[in-house]
Amino acid sequence: MARAITLIESGGSEGEALIDLLYPHFGPARIIGVTGPPGAGKSTLVDGLLTELRRRGERVGVLAVDPSSPFSGGALLGDRLRMARHAADSGVFIRSMATRGHWGGLTLVTTEAAGVLQAAGFTTVIIETVGVGQSEVEIMSAADVVLVVLVPGAGDDIQALKAGIMEIGDIYVVNKSDLPGAAELAAVLRFALRGEGNPALDESEHPDSGHADSGDPNTLPGPVHAPQIRLASALNGSGLAELMVTLEQTEARLQASGELDRRRRRRSATELERIAQAAVRGWLVDRGIVPVDPDQLLREFERDNRGPHRFIRERLEEAIRNGNRLSGGASK
Amino acid sequence: MARAITLIESGGSEGEALIDLLYPHFGPARIIGVTGPPGAGKSTLVDGLLTELRRRGERVGVLAVDPSSPFSGGALLGDRLRMARHAADSGVFIRSMATRGHWGGLTLVTTEAAGVLQAAGFTTVIIETVGVGQSEVEIMSAADVVLVVLVPGAGDDIQALKAGIMEIGDIYVVNKSDLPGAAELAAVLRFALRGEGNPALDESEHPDSGHADSGDPNTLPGPVHAPQIRLASALNGSGLAELMVTLEQTEARLQASGELDRRRRRRSATELERIAQAAVRGWLVDRGIVPVDPDQLLREFERDNRGPHRFIRERLEEAIRNGNRLSGGASK
Repeated sequence: MARAITLIESGGSEGEALIDLLYPHFGPARIIGVTGPPGAGKSTLVDGLLTELRRRGERVGVLAVDPSSPFSGGALLGDRLRMARHAADSGVFIRSMATRGHWGGLTLVTTEAAGVLQAAGFTTVIIETVGVGQSEVEIMSAADVVLVVLVPGAGDDIQALKAGIMEIGDIYVVNKSDLPGAAELAAVLRFALRGEGNPALDESEHPDSGHADSGDPNTLPGPVHAPQIRLASALNGSGLAELMVTLEQTEARLQASGELDRRRRRRSATELERIAQAAVRGWLVDRGIVPVDPDQLLREFERDNRGPHRFIRERLEEAIRNGNRLSGGASK
Repeated sequence: MARAITLIESGGSEGEALIDLLYPHFGPARIIGVTGPPGAGKSTLVDGLLTELRRRGERVGVLAVDPSSPFSGGALLGDRLRMARHAADSGVFIRSMATRGHWGGLTLVTTEAAGVLQAAGFTTVIIETVGVGQSEVEIMSAADVVLVVLVPGAGDDIQALKAGIMEIGDIYVVNKSDLPGAAELAAVLRFALRGEGNPALDESEHPDSGHADSGDPNTLPGPVHAPQIRLASALNGSGLAELMVTLEQTEARLQASGELDRRRRRRSATELERIAQAAVRGWLVDRGIVPVDPDQLLREFERDNRGPHRFIRERLEEAIRNGNRLSGGASK
């Protein structure tokens, strides 16, 4: 498994052939995305989900794109010890994903690695990414259902609201729910997700904020895909069983409404487009339009002394005139 | 100016021709990047820099990629009033940049928009982006010199350290320096930027943390490109004049060491590569290899019933065999 994923990560023709071969066996495993800011306790939560999923007899693969994740190597001692208990479990496969190098981008590699895990009989794949940036949001498009993990703490709540993270979650987990401010964060989330405009952070304006730690903050009927909010403390395990129930209900709802199918089709279309981009990039490099050494291209451009778009277009046109084979370099 | 940038944003052949035409007049204006998490006061700082630069007789263009920036429209009333004083000033041009749509990506569009401003005689261009994600870091590569704006506040300091922002700044501005924790944040930054390993947040371990608000925390000689740390309060203007001096010293040092030239060459090389990718993408769409409607490609792929890499490669090979002109669709 690890060697197959390494092959895919390297972006070569062997990895591509492997994908083509395994493609009919991709799916139908569930793919769960877990994201959130650094320090939100994503890895501890993933660890807790792993335990719950194993208890249900699922075979679970974890793809960690989070550079601060203990799965990726950036672990504190406590995290490593916690992870170690899965090491001997053949129903668990854990892999950190490299964040650079593949031309198709990390989302494509992650999608294809998840496919390989599915083909190998893993019934659930968890993708963990750090952060709230555009690239992390993008990786979450590889998942069927997305958990956004947040922690109580000054500033974090407002940052999450501003950073676009409010659009991607199916379930918002207020982790470390024993910390002060957990109820307030849940209230802010509930308010913001209702779409009533700018979430005021003054609790007194929201009489319902007291419900936050009642365990069932979903009083609103909302649209079919209204995100859920759950309190949990991944470290001591509280709220995890309830979170699993919410996860399963959410998946069932996404499936019933056709949204799951729409997401998977969108993912396949994006995957094809990324493959096309990577293939073209390989073709460009094969023909020296984009040299492996970018300085070389720049020197030629400087000698050329024309505008950059014209310079590139003429090189491309020439390459297309001369090129009859896409790759392999045989025609070079 | 606004229409020229709109033309470039649209990614069409007219915008490309405009770039080719103006290219000889690009540069040598300074390009200042300003980034940091939401709520750090980037826009207020940019406003302060604007005033300082105008006082020096510079003509200043601002390209705001930050969706929360008042320059981009997401302003609170106070911000809008502050911005309004530049509206009548012909030596100031402010433009928000769309975050989607152009195939070459936002970094290319921003780089080219900055070029157009330079060609029009603007002597300084400020690029403002929000956040600490990968795409924002990438946009900062369009700048000669990068200011990272941070504010005191629980969690922020640690997040900045983890999110890769510590690698891109030439100057770190501890904004809102009148807030509690400003000195501590400066101390953490100073410690982290020294590269002495994991920055402990326990002040008592760092006898030098008391220097943080002395106004000159740069006691270390460090390497030529050692990032600078400055305290400022953009809202009341304190520290801005000193920040301008630091900015000018940093630019002079980057120039003297050859680093500025290296950055500009790297930027040009990256720009060429992005142009090549965008050109190929246009070519692919022209030929229906990547249709404008991704669903169409997906339906054809599903009928094809082969692996995705093979499917794409064969379409590409066919397109290259048939294609003699890159764009314009004349050969379709």
